[in-house]
Amino acid sequence: MSQAVRRRGRVELPPNRHREILEIAARMICEKGYEGASIQQIAHACGLTKAGLYYHIGSKQHLLVEIMHYGMDIFEERVLSQVEPITDPLERLRTSMAKNVLMVTRDRNKEITIILHEHATLTGEELDRINTRKKRYVRFLERSFSEAIATGQIRRVDPKVATFAFLGAVNWIYKWFQPDGHITEEQLVRGMQDVFFGGLEPRSSAKPEGS
Amino acid sequence: MSQAVRRRGRVELPPNRHREILEIAARMICEKGYEGASIQQIAHACGLTKAGLYYHIGSKQHLLVEIMHYGMDIFEERVLSQVEPITDPLERLRTSMAKNVLMVTRDRNKEITIILHEHATLTGEELDRINTRKKRYVRFLERSFSEAIATGQIRRVDPKVATFAFLGAVNWIYKWFQPDGHITEEQLVRGMQDVFFGGLEPRSSAKPEGS
Repeated sequence: MSQAVRRRGRVELPPNRHREILEIAARMICEKGYEGASIQQIAHACGLTKAGLYYHIGSKQHLLVEIMHYGMDIFEERVLSQVEPITDPLERLRTSMAKNVLMVTRDRNKEITIILHEHATLTGEELDRINTRKKRYVRFLERSFSEAIATGQIRRVDPKVATFAFLGAVNWIYKWFQPDGHITEEQLVRGMQDVFFGGLEPRSSAKPEGS
Repeated sequence: MSQAVRRRGRVELPPNRHREILEIAARMICEKGYEGASIQQIAHACGLTKAGLYYHIGSKQHLLVEIMHYGMDIFEERVLSQVEPITDPLERLRTSMAKNVLMVTRDRNKEITIILHEHATLTGEELDRINTRKKRYVRFLERSFSEAIATGQIRRVDPKVATFAFLGAVNWIYKWFQPDGHITEEQLVRGMQDVFFGGLEPRSSAKPEGS
């Protein structure tokens, strides 16, 4: 991850310092909006001059792009690369949900996650590159659902609808979950797996399979 | 709905014209960000002078608040008020999902929905008021899940987790659904109901109830 972050920086900074700048900038952009958070304010919060920050990040647009790639770096390291090797497709999907939930609930990453998923002002090639990275996970989930349907571990649902229902249920968590609230992270993981994989209706009143 | 919209406007405009201004402003805010979309640009797109727009909307912050309340007006009219009278809790939940999905897929409302749900710069009392309206739906869903569990129509899952999984799966739709794509609105509604209420795992391999 750190190599990927450093490779995209204009000027090499110690990786920890580079990540710290991205995290501070993400918090400010979430608080004030992308246009509302000035480079001056972000630089000040990072303990840099405006010129110093520009020297490292190139432009404000490039800073936003870096935050998003940083978010994808963390995601791929903590979720995707961990679950891709799992052979059993249902186990792979259940573990993806667990790891993805924990990625979203960890407060330190909250702003990064928001910037990664909410409506961005990014356009063109930069947006395409981020979307290509996101799509890798979408395709991975779709393939896993299709495999689990083929093995009979999952009913014959639409793999695309299942994939986006999964992503919605998991990514929506940052909008409501309080890390210090009544539900612990572990309860949330088990509760989400139970609702999503176990389903809501007792099977007797559920639709027939493949309907 | 129109009365609520008019009541909050500084100066009474014909309701259709007022809504048109809110829809145009929502599109521009989604495109350029809240800070990025200037009142000058929004006024121009509405065929008004900057002073004329300020005369009607009071301030840019008030415009954002009005767009959100407009989104809640539409939502309460087309979803909540339609499903609240349904006696059977499972039928109430399934119909809520259907109507909520259709509200999100209708392209005309997409920007309003984005502004309603994405990270806003709004704070204080204005944010509290919007959140109170949103919470009415959250409580309604939680109560409906609890009722359906009590009647045995739904397994003993956590009603809060089920509620937010429902909201995430449905509200995430605007991030991926293409109205002219391979999946029709009707297929999406049935697919979502099937995945969410029917569940994924065949009951034999699912967790025991109440686990």
